[in-house]
Amino acid sequence: MNFASDNAGPMHPQVLDAVIRANDGTQMPYGADTIMDGVKARVREIFEAPEAAVYLVATGTAANALALATYANPWDAIFCHRTSHTEKDECGAPEFYAGGAKLKLVDGSDGKMTPTALEASMAETGGSVHGVQTGPVSITQVTELGTLYTTTEIGDLAEVAKSHGANVHLDGARFANAMSRLNCSAADMTWRAGVDAVSFGGTKNGCAGVEAVILFDPDKAWEFELRRKRGAHLFSKHRFLSGQMEGYLKDDLWLDLARKANANSDQLAAGLRGIDNARLLHEPQANMIFAELPRAAHRRAKAAGAQYYVTSPGATLDGPDETPLTCRLVCDWSKTEDQIDQLLSLFRG
Amino acid sequence: MNFASDNAGPMHPQVLDAVIRANDGTQMPYGADTIMDGVKARVREIFEAPEAAVYLVATGTAANALALATYANPWDAIFCHRTSHTEKDECGAPEFYAGGAKLKLVDGSDGKMTPTALEASMAETGGSVHGVQTGPVSITQVTELGTLYTTTEIGDLAEVAKSHGANVHLDGARFANAMSRLNCSAADMTWRAGVDAVSFGGTKNGCAGVEAVILFDPDKAWEFELRRKRGAHLFSKHRFLSGQMEGYLKDDLWLDLARKANANSDQLAAGLRGIDNARLLHEPQANMIFAELPRAAHRRAKAAGAQYYVTSPGATLDGPDETPLTCRLVCDWSKTEDQIDQLLSLFRG
Amino acid sequence: MNFASDNAGPMHPQVLDAVIRANDGTQMPYGADTIMDGVKARVREIFEAPEAAVYLVATGTAANALALATYANPWDAIFCHRTSHTEKDECGAPEFYAGGAKLKLVDGSDGKMTPTALEASMAETGGSVHGVQTGPVSITQVTELGTLYTTTEIGDLAEVAKSHGANVHLDGARFANAMSRLNCSAADMTWRAGVDAVSFGGTKNGCAGVEAVILFDPDKAWEFELRRKRGAHLFSKHRFLSGQMEGYLKDDLWLDLARKANANSDQLAAGLRGIDNARLLHEPQANMIFAELPRAAHRRAKAAGAQYYVTSPGATLDGPDETPLTCRLVCDWSKTEDQIDQLLSLFRG
Amino acid sequence: MNFASDNAGPMHPQVLDAVIRANDGTQMPYGADTIMDGVKARVREIFEAPEAAVYLVATGTAANALALATYANPWDAIFCHRTSHTEKDECGAPEFYAGGAKLKLVDGSDGKMTPTALEASMAETGGSVHGVQTGPVSITQVTELGTLYTTTEIGDLAEVAKSHGANVHLDGARFANAMSRLNCSAADMTWRAGVDAVSFGGTKNGCAGVEAVILFDPDKAWEFELRRKRGAHLFSKHRFLSGQMEGYLKDDLWLDLARKANANSDQLAAGLRGIDNARLLHEPQANMIFAELPRAAHRRAKAAGAQYYVTSPGATLDGPDETPLTCRLVCDWSKTEDQIDQLLSLFRG
Repeated sequence: MNFASDNAGPMHPQVLDAVIRANDGTQMPYGADTIMDGVKARVREIFEAPEAAVYLVATGTAANALALATYANPWDAIFCHRTSHTEKDECGAPEFYAGGAKLKLVDGSDGKMTPTALEASMAETGGSVHGVQTGPVSITQVTELGTLYTTTEIGDLAEVAKSHGANVHLDGARFANAMSRLNCSAADMTWRAGVDAVSFGGTKNGCAGVEAVILFDPDKAWEFELRRKRGAHLFSKHRFLSGQMEGYLKDDLWLDLARKANANSDQLAAGLRGIDNARLLHEPQANMIFAELPRAAHRRAKAAGAQYYVTSPGATLDGPDETPLTCRLVCDWSKTEDQIDQLLSLFRG
Repeated sequence: MNFASDNAGPMHPQVLDAVIRANDGTQMPYGADTIMDGVKARVREIFEAPEAAVYLVATGTAANALALATYANPWDAIFCHRTSHTEKDECGAPEFYAGGAKLKLVDGSDGKMTPTALEASMAETGGSVHGVQTGPVSITQVTELGTLYTTTEIGDLAEVAKSHGANVHLDGARFANAMSRLNCSAADMTWRAGVDAVSFGGTKNGCAGVEAVILFDPDKAWEFELRRKRGAHLFSKHRFLSGQMEGYLKDDLWLDLARKANANSDQLAAGLRGIDNARLLHEPQANMIFAELPRAAHRRAKAAGAQYYVTSPGATLDGPDETPLTCRLVCDWSKTEDQIDQLLSLFRG
Repeated sequence: MNFASDNAGPMHPQVLDAVIRANDGTQMPYGADTIMDGVKARVREIFEAPEAAVYLVATGTAANALALATYANPWDAIFCHRTSHTEKDECGAPEFYAGGAKLKLVDGSDGKMTPTALEASMAETGGSVHGVQTGPVSITQVTELGTLYTTTEIGDLAEVAKSHGANVHLDGARFANAMSRLNCSAADMTWRAGVDAVSFGGTKNGCAGVEAVILFDPDKAWEFELRRKRGAHLFSKHRFLSGQMEGYLKDDLWLDLARKANANSDQLAAGLRGIDNARLLHEPQANMIFAELPRAAHRRAKAAGAQYYVTSPGATLDGPDETPLTCRLVCDWSKTEDQIDQLLSLFRG
Repeated sequence: MNFASDNAGPMHPQVLDAVIRANDGTQMPYGADTIMDGVKARVREIFEAPEAAVYLVATGTAANALALATYANPWDAIFCHRTSHTEKDECGAPEFYAGGAKLKLVDGSDGKMTPTALEASMAETGGSVHGVQTGPVSITQVTELGTLYTTTEIGDLAEVAKSHGANVHLDGARFANAMSRLNCSAADMTWRAGVDAVSFGGTKNGCAGVEAVILFDPDKAWEFELRRKRGAHLFSKHRFLSGQMEGYLKDDLWLDLARKANANSDQLAAGLRGIDNARLLHEPQANMIFAELPRAAHRRAKAAGAQYYVTSPGATLDGPDETPLTCRLVCDWSKTEDQIDQLLSLFRG
């Protein structure tokens, strides 16, 4: 019963099979493997972007930091939500890769920047030499609070960015979860809404460690390649990245797995709604739930071996039963109906 | 017939099996997987270093750059051979990770620094605020020219380093090839000779993409962890790194594969020695050969589909048959006797 | 009538005389001039800190950025007020010098961090490898809003910092203005309150371009020297920095000039209080006033050649007379009673 | 008797007078002072470059590092002579400012790169993603060994650079010494020969601390301004930089002082040539001499208080009288005939 993260689950068998196939014989290194040709073609097809530059790296932080560094000068601000992964969970990787750029934190409820807040923040940069200049905007979709931007909302933020001459990056570590829920196309959620670069996640959704970076305007492609190599993120045996991504994209597995993860989360959310004293902190829109439950519920679940993060600062399992403690519960495709029921049953007591 | 690099070959079945096993069920992320416990214990046992800090990353450049950055201040020189991978093949990753440190290039024949040249180079740094200060020494073993330092030679270089208060790093992308040839222990080739940190390669020797970084003095362990995370090299599904390394170390597979790669290279070198107009540029000591062959020999081999790098600057296959052109030929464990014979036969014409 | 900044005024004659004296004959470069010996001794005496390391640079941003970089790792957060000079007016110099550290913005009214807000912000860093770690706290005294921390308030912030193992930096670009107003000793406002490093400003208070950096614990002195040189802030003809500082400190000129600047500001503030429709935004405590005046008042002043910054975002002098527009008015020691009266009279209309 | 460096001498009275004039009244800060208008116009006139961007900083290292960073990507090589100031005497400032770029050291006798050596070095960069890319070339004129490139030689190096698409920087810390000796125009020695950016020194030639950076193509001007500010090199009381430069350029003082410094050096070199057992290591072409003299000669000079650097590694004044020890002797404009005679007389014994 591991609900700690969608990075706790295994590769899907179809991805594993592709890795095993990728292992056959010899391949030229550093992205010159023959599998990558198919991956590029398929990504361009999915995104309806025949000119896009497509690259693979092994971690989501690498995808984000390299993409942002490619669009930000060292003296720029990068605009992101206060709760974004780039700000909270990357140990300053964007600052490192972008040569000391500054993350400007934008507000908005439920983990979502508002166009008004973004405009106010962007208006504070640039103009004179004294402050930092106006760099790219990074949108996290699914947000770190499990909520979603609509494609219109993404377009509104991109419009603010464009009015300042800034590029737009989409951190899509959970791209598939968002897209399958919004029931839109990959293009709708990205370049049609004004997005210039995407981190397209595979790791959390059935892969072992692979993320695509897609640059719709290939002008920055060579710079990205240099940054990837210099950042030590260019795999020599690149075919194992290509292989994962091939298996992931084939027959729309990526969307199937995301739908399954979202459905698992829906089942869990529905169950939580039926528990006395349980409360959802945000309306879950993908595969991630933030909930409040009495300490006794957590104690039962943890005692039975359930794994997930209790997020109340400084909270321990010792103390009054009734104290409400918040937690994060994440489902990937591999959770079973039974596991979810079991967790709910422990919470119910 | 791919002799381009030891990164052109597949995972060994035992490594692949370990990856498949690692895929079972759920695991806590970011290095907290249960497989890693065994990996750490095994590495410490192999190195007879019970206190060593042991980390995994996916690329050799990451291993080198992170290890060097951990021991070098931004205002330091890092000392390495003029032909080292860190200098020639990492697009400035050491400089990037170490915040702008300077690589000082040390001379010596056959890709090996001499103590005298190292001493002269180190003596030029430090002392006043005007020049860069005296940072770590990085020794490449196997060298980029396919030669080896004896353990005594490593010790002599380390002694020079220590006399300047500097740490010693060993770039062991081909650690196993060196160790099996020298017939020494891992400890002999590292800490007993004065080495403080090792990049211990797996990728080129039967893995998909995994390298261990071993810090014999764990004082810098936490800094290394922060640098790894900030560099975006901490895998969420870390178990796939642990799994590879587990399969690689089990039953001394790593040494068996290195012995096989070296033996393959011996077979190839012996064959080359018997070819008229062929010449070995350095005495091959591990699994990498630099040779000179007439253009006609290259033309025949390439026409038959052989893959390897012709290294004469600006060379093409067009031109007089007799012109000698240099090349690099690398064997991993997966080369067969037949493939080697076939290449030799093409060279012979 | 230049009230734009305290950097708009000239050197005080006593400082200029010292520069002229410093020009005599030859001097060894890079801080080895004989004048610097006296400067170091005098600074240590003023701060009652006989062991302190004392360095000179030419700009306040250099003093701040070098001092903060000396105490912050690249993966650290630096804590400062949302309105601080380091955050708003240095084009990311602290991030540049500290290798990509993150400025965490702390709240508090009147430009002053509160201990509670600082504690909350510091509690968010460190602990795991995922977020940035807990670096130094930077206190701006005089604040960028013209207000002052009491020595007790500085001590309270330092106590929060120390409880997190963090160092404390004081950005004293207007150190003398603060100290003379608080009527405390230099030691009281710094190390006795828990401050580890000070940017001690001269430029805005009668010098041409000189700031001292004082490190009470000399352990970091050599690192600071290397950072200063590497940052290109070590003057070859250092005697001209030493000369300025010598003239500045002699016979307590620095305090006399600050008192005069503060008194000038008091005169201006008193006058503004007597103007209908004028309003002070913060209680001015040193030599900097933020005020609101009707557009007509600004129009009259500007038409007569008064120089100062109108700070209402996007404000122009065109529009209804009554619209209140905010401005910043700064006095240095060189303002005369007449100039201040003249400005007030223009405001009054 | 200070022959240690041309940074040991004072401001020329005309420069000091200009500083005193610059101190009058108030001035807008950060380069918006009225004096700077005249400086820009005069520099453009001198360089016959009406479109050039002209900036002032206080140190030569800042001028070099900022100019190079403006033309080098972090993943680029910067090409310079093995003995250049950028390589030997800036504690890695170019690497720091350029985000970790790599200095590639080019050979050539007498401190001068040869086109052949430059071509060989540039040919090693770029092409693939594995090595660093081809960045700017930095030419030191006067070289660090006191020799000069002819304008033709500069043009030849620039031609090599241009053939690789690279920009050319000229480190002219001793620009005036070179130009007055070559008897050419400023344009001849720079943009007409293919130079894109110049560090134009004032500090060593009669100023207190001011260098101009001249970018002939103003496209990079804004980036340079941001880098200067972010590097903490934008002076608030910029008028004191402008003032120095105004005094320096007025009535060709800069050339007069350089001629005087060169003539002083000629006198000293002529004297040295007449001393038994003295030897000039390079033919001095500007104001800097490298000579070998018996230890006894150094002992006499030092005992009499002469200041200069003995450059033989590890040399001390104790030991056999006859041992030849090398030294560097630098003249600025302020040396007198008597001082030079006195030094020579001490050397003669």
